[in-house]
Amino acid sequence: MRGRIDVGLLGATGIVGTWLARMLRDHPWFRLAEVGASPASEGRSYGEVAALSSLPGGAEIPDEILALELKAPTDEWSSPLLLCALPSREAGRVEEELAGRGHVVVSNAASHRMDADVPLIIPEVNPGHLALVERQQERWPGMLITNPNCSVVGLALALAPLHRAFGLRMVTVATLQALSGAGRPGPSAGDMLDNVLPHIAGEEEKLAREPQKILGELQERTIQPAAFPVSAQTHRVPVTHGHLLAVSAKLDVPANPDEVVEAFAGFRGAVRDERLPSAPVRPIDVVDGEARPQPRLDRDRGDGMTVAVGRVRRCETLDVKFTVLVHNLVRGAAGAALLNAELCHVSGYSPKAGRR
Amino acid sequence: MRGRIDVGLLGATGIVGTWLARMLRDHPWFRLAEVGASPASEGRSYGEVAALSSLPGGAEIPDEILALELKAPTDEWSSPLLLCALPSREAGRVEEELAGRGHVVVSNAASHRMDADVPLIIPEVNPGHLALVERQQERWPGMLITNPNCSVVGLALALAPLHRAFGLRMVTVATLQALSGAGRPGPSAGDMLDNVLPHIAGEEEKLAREPQKILGELQERTIQPAAFPVSAQTHRVPVTHGHLLAVSAKLDVPANPDEVVEAFAGFRGAVRDERLPSAPVRPIDVVDGEARPQPRLDRDRGDGMTVAVGRVRRCETLDVKFTVLVHNLVRGAAGAALLNAELCHVSGYSPKAGRR
Amino acid sequence: MRGRIDVGLLGATGIVGTWLARMLRDHPWFRLAEVGASPASEGRSYGEVAALSSLPGGAEIPDEILALELKAPTDEWSSPLLLCALPSREAGRVEEELAGRGHVVVSNAASHRMDADVPLIIPEVNPGHLALVERQQERWPGMLITNPNCSVVGLALALAPLHRAFGLRMVTVATLQALSGAGRPGPSAGDMLDNVLPHIAGEEEKLAREPQKILGELQERTIQPAAFPVSAQTHRVPVTHGHLLAVSAKLDVPANPDEVVEAFAGFRGAVRDERLPSAPVRPIDVVDGEARPQPRLDRDRGDGMTVAVGRVRRCETLDVKFTVLVHNLVRGAAGAALLNAELCHVSGYSPKAGRR
Amino acid sequence: MRGRIDVGLLGATGIVGTWLARMLRDHPWFRLAEVGASPASEGRSYGEVAALSSLPGGAEIPDEILALELKAPTDEWSSPLLLCALPSREAGRVEEELAGRGHVVVSNAASHRMDADVPLIIPEVNPGHLALVERQQERWPGMLITNPNCSVVGLALALAPLHRAFGLRMVTVATLQALSGAGRPGPSAGDMLDNVLPHIAGEEEKLAREPQKILGELQERTIQPAAFPVSAQTHRVPVTHGHLLAVSAKLDVPANPDEVVEAFAGFRGAVRDERLPSAPVRPIDVVDGEARPQPRLDRDRGDGMTVAVGRVRRCETLDVKFTVLVHNLVRGAAGAALLNAELCHVSGYSPKAGRR
Repeated sequence: MRGRIDVGLLGATGIVGTWLARMLRDHPWFRLAEVGASPASEGRSYGEVAALSSLPGGAEIPDEILALELKAPTDEWSSPLLLCALPSREAGRVEEELAGRGHVVVSNAASHRMDADVPLIIPEVNPGHLALVERQQERWPGMLITNPNCSVVGLALALAPLHRAFGLRMVTVATLQALSGAGRPGPSAGDMLDNVLPHIAGEEEKLAREPQKILGELQERTIQPAAFPVSAQTHRVPVTHGHLLAVSAKLDVPANPDEVVEAFAGFRGAVRDERLPSAPVRPIDVVDGEARPQPRLDRDRGDGMTVAVGRVRRCETLDVKFTVLVHNLVRGAAGAALLNAELCHVSGYSPKAGRR
Repeated sequence: MRGRIDVGLLGATGIVGTWLARMLRDHPWFRLAEVGASPASEGRSYGEVAALSSLPGGAEIPDEILALELKAPTDEWSSPLLLCALPSREAGRVEEELAGRGHVVVSNAASHRMDADVPLIIPEVNPGHLALVERQQERWPGMLITNPNCSVVGLALALAPLHRAFGLRMVTVATLQALSGAGRPGPSAGDMLDNVLPHIAGEEEKLAREPQKILGELQERTIQPAAFPVSAQTHRVPVTHGHLLAVSAKLDVPANPDEVVEAFAGFRGAVRDERLPSAPVRPIDVVDGEARPQPRLDRDRGDGMTVAVGRVRRCETLDVKFTVLVHNLVRGAAGAALLNAELCHVSGYSPKAGRR
Repeated sequence: MRGRIDVGLLGATGIVGTWLARMLRDHPWFRLAEVGASPASEGRSYGEVAALSSLPGGAEIPDEILALELKAPTDEWSSPLLLCALPSREAGRVEEELAGRGHVVVSNAASHRMDADVPLIIPEVNPGHLALVERQQERWPGMLITNPNCSVVGLALALAPLHRAFGLRMVTVATLQALSGAGRPGPSAGDMLDNVLPHIAGEEEKLAREPQKILGELQERTIQPAAFPVSAQTHRVPVTHGHLLAVSAKLDVPANPDEVVEAFAGFRGAVRDERLPSAPVRPIDVVDGEARPQPRLDRDRGDGMTVAVGRVRRCETLDVKFTVLVHNLVRGAAGAALLNAELCHVSGYSPKAGRR
Repeated sequence: MRGRIDVGLLGATGIVGTWLARMLRDHPWFRLAEVGASPASEGRSYGEVAALSSLPGGAEIPDEILALELKAPTDEWSSPLLLCALPSREAGRVEEELAGRGHVVVSNAASHRMDADVPLIIPEVNPGHLALVERQQERWPGMLITNPNCSVVGLALALAPLHRAFGLRMVTVATLQALSGAGRPGPSAGDMLDNVLPHIAGEEEKLAREPQKILGELQERTIQPAAFPVSAQTHRVPVTHGHLLAVSAKLDVPANPDEVVEAFAGFRGAVRDERLPSAPVRPIDVVDGEARPQPRLDRDRGDGMTVAVGRVRRCETLDVKFTVLVHNLVRGAAGAALLNAELCHVSGYSPKAGRR
């Protein structure tokens, strides 16, 4: 564990931040050295304010981490690599300032995802987009890299093999999303009991825009977004973790369900020499069973980093339909950011050098 | 209350049957005179076996009804009008036999819905299809009339004004369906807690076929089904009552969301001189609020007979998308059958005469 | 409906206040004339801020009430009778000030329940305690009357017939309490899903003190509290409405379960010539069934004003044990306050005169 | 892993059996060699019928175990040690027959728990009771050892240090029990949503009898049960795993809450030279926080083998009250049986020898 890179974690006390702290516990490359939250928590210890109750098995973060004093986002950070799990409304300016000071900022926030010079990355899907950071030289000495929205990660991972094998013409998706995706405190129990909510603020817009950037092509330092439209209807359901997506897709080249299953099953992601420590063996699991995937049974596949796909069948209106399940906190947020940090590291975007 | 017509209720002890018994409590035209269940319950009193716990306020069925002795489906029934809430696997033969004995059978079961000579009716949408019973003379002296599947009622009611005003080219729907739609005992609590199920047996097939028959045209004693395909993805969620549908539709004649809202809001159903006692003032309510309709807040509109529609907006892939909520036990089942029985009555298909 | 007394409702926008507004809809004696909330909502319309989603069937409050402009608690109120559903932390001073201005204040808040000169009343149990208001002349020209905590109403109503028939030596109670008892927003869905909470702030203390005052004797203008201790353990469970209480009691005069059932079944409350409009036919229902009462099946008995008692059986450690269910929002809060206002009215404590 | 003892698992397909198979996965002493279920499943593979969906992370049982063919209970078993997770109504005769054939049978079933010659054991509490098997020579060549009911394990473990330090005079307990304790399929989702059930068949009787045997004394080959009565009220709540118990106790020697906390915190169980592999470091954790323990946050302490105790405070009616949480499937069932098997093994009751 020697020679690990110091990492600072902004927004450490929220649900995503707390899961990130847990995932960093025994990380082979990174060492959690600094934690920060909103200015209101500044000076308190991390353990006092962290969303520990969101973790599955209670206190799984080392005591020395829980004892760290919380910094404000705009404080001086000594770690070269900063992971940002701040709410999007707070993250925008902070991230710019920290990149301006030369940090490598790997962010889960939505603020800069659609910026023309900011890569929006799923390492198995579009690692090459990382080169877009070259354009950031015009803005700051550091780097800013983002991962998609939690639902988008599941959708884009599932669409990637279809996009590659058949091309995509249009996509319709309805989501059933878990409570932990709403952060703290999230919806009240009184509103969610014996109920579902047919709206999640900002979610449908993200599902309509982010997948095309991820599946787009980098040409002359610009992403040409993929052209297929995505229509989303999002719902909050009483599930702790795990977003379920009912997807219909129209393909450029017609394919039957068996061919689609084959594309899913064969997907291994962009081939790399070095394995990223947080990458799952399989990014996509095709699951059998007429009523699978299910949130409680399938969210922990690949330690939460594997997306489950099932019920692949012919669609009466488009071409094919299927069900996707993504662990919103792991593959969809904390693990997504961590995997991106790992990708940066092996890609030679050294946090110390700022840019190779 | 004099001169009410005697009604027999088959499948009286299930959830739908129990709600029917409750809706018949103070009915101005019908008097619940006989109740039946599967042969296993024969001879026991109705109150012992009825699904009383599915009713919202406890014991709301009169004691004299609860004291009735349960008959077997194939027993002699003296009531001219029979309401059938049997499970579909049991209903098929029984309904044929009872129509064969001259009864008017109004059924909630799926067994005969797609028969060429059996009307599949929502009174506000396609009351004229009732004339199809004329063709049944070839089969039996009685009559058999059916209502759609519980999700289909909500979908077809919402589609009806669009079909009429703009024409429909294709429809995609994802459902979040309540537990009571699964009957007794339905899914186990252990399977539904912290979970949703992405499959309901037979439901997607019904959503793919029944709407076209309902919105079809009766020509020369044959229904010409509407041509638009429907692609459904169905889910069971932990809600007591109320199916939510996320719908996207492609129209023949393009329309913007405001025009679609206008079509919904102006829908009054087929105009009739006589009002049916169980018909709501408005078959469709357009509800405001970015997170409406919701099952718990909107299922009881119009005493459960009004379908709520909300979130009407442009669809990125088809033309328009919106959310529909239908009380699966009332408008989707018990109330659907009762309304059909009322329609028969005012249409002069006298239960005594069998056929006018 | 002529000649109804004008009523002002403080804390009208919370869950209890909203249910009170609904119960006042068609009240034969009272007319809701003024509504108020915290100063933050002052000047907005009632409909904008009310907890309408807590009501079972949606918008059941008349439009003219929803259009009322909200007042601040310390504004001038013209109604002689004021119902107070403010949170206890806000209610204390406000109620004193309003009684100081001559209003009859009927409060659901905890602030003054244990004051020596303030009656804590359940009309069927201790209507005679109303005379305690005579002592309030020393404090103010108005009057202040309170109802118990929502769990205490259920417990004290169930204990009343045992106290009267056998005497009580000690009581142990464990509660399983509904979400709506926690007000808005209440616990988060993320904390309540797949979970129960073994603590409700302040609740065990109220269960330990309020029953003795209610079952105490008024002697020389002072309540002598009943002497039996009450030990409570309280829990929040994922139920919308309806608090369940598991009670064990030691009696002064030994009694077997049959005798205890008889005491419950025979309880009719203090006999009155005039019936209070909101009083149920039976304050206590003894329910059969080895797994009854249950929140969803039994909370609506007597329109929510009847407490259900079941599972009466021998206790291995004290004498007898049983289960109690009370609708926390109706009998336990909104209905409790309204019933007290009705009691005041028929007792000649005219709101206009202030004191008879 | 060499030289491990072959173990047969009866009732392997139920929830408890499936968790046992998972706990045996990498066991240092035992090797799962045979699995059985009811005769109806005979001949099918274990993986087809096992309650795999009850496991937290999906398929965590090795493929070679899932491929085993299921035996009927009365088949020939070659393993010397048999773990029995059959339902009690099936287990009685089967266990007698298998002990009659010389097997060491370690059972989770209730059938023989109260037999005078059958030890009812929690290894940290009453390991010495194991000697009671000597009396079984009169009945059969094998041995039969049982663990308590899932709620009783939590209660008896929490009472043990109090019994030892202060003596117990009487105990009152109300439980909030998880769904998985009800086995498959358990209560229906429709009955448990927005509801709790105030009754669990047979549970209150077990809580009233088993603790006294466990805390009793073995004198002249007979257990003298402890004398304190236990009064229980049991409830089913919508929680996946984890039974919560609200306990009040009257002590022989008065003690204040601090002394009681000290007794809990100091409890280490019967001291042994050999550590049992499934024994937790601490059988009891005293947890801080006014709303702890909670099922979701505390059930996994000590991998589910540690009971959490909190909210220790003075009781107004008895002496002290507190909250206990036990993972019903691990410490309360699968882990309880496995720990007993380990105790047998180190105690020299060699499965091969039958009896030492």
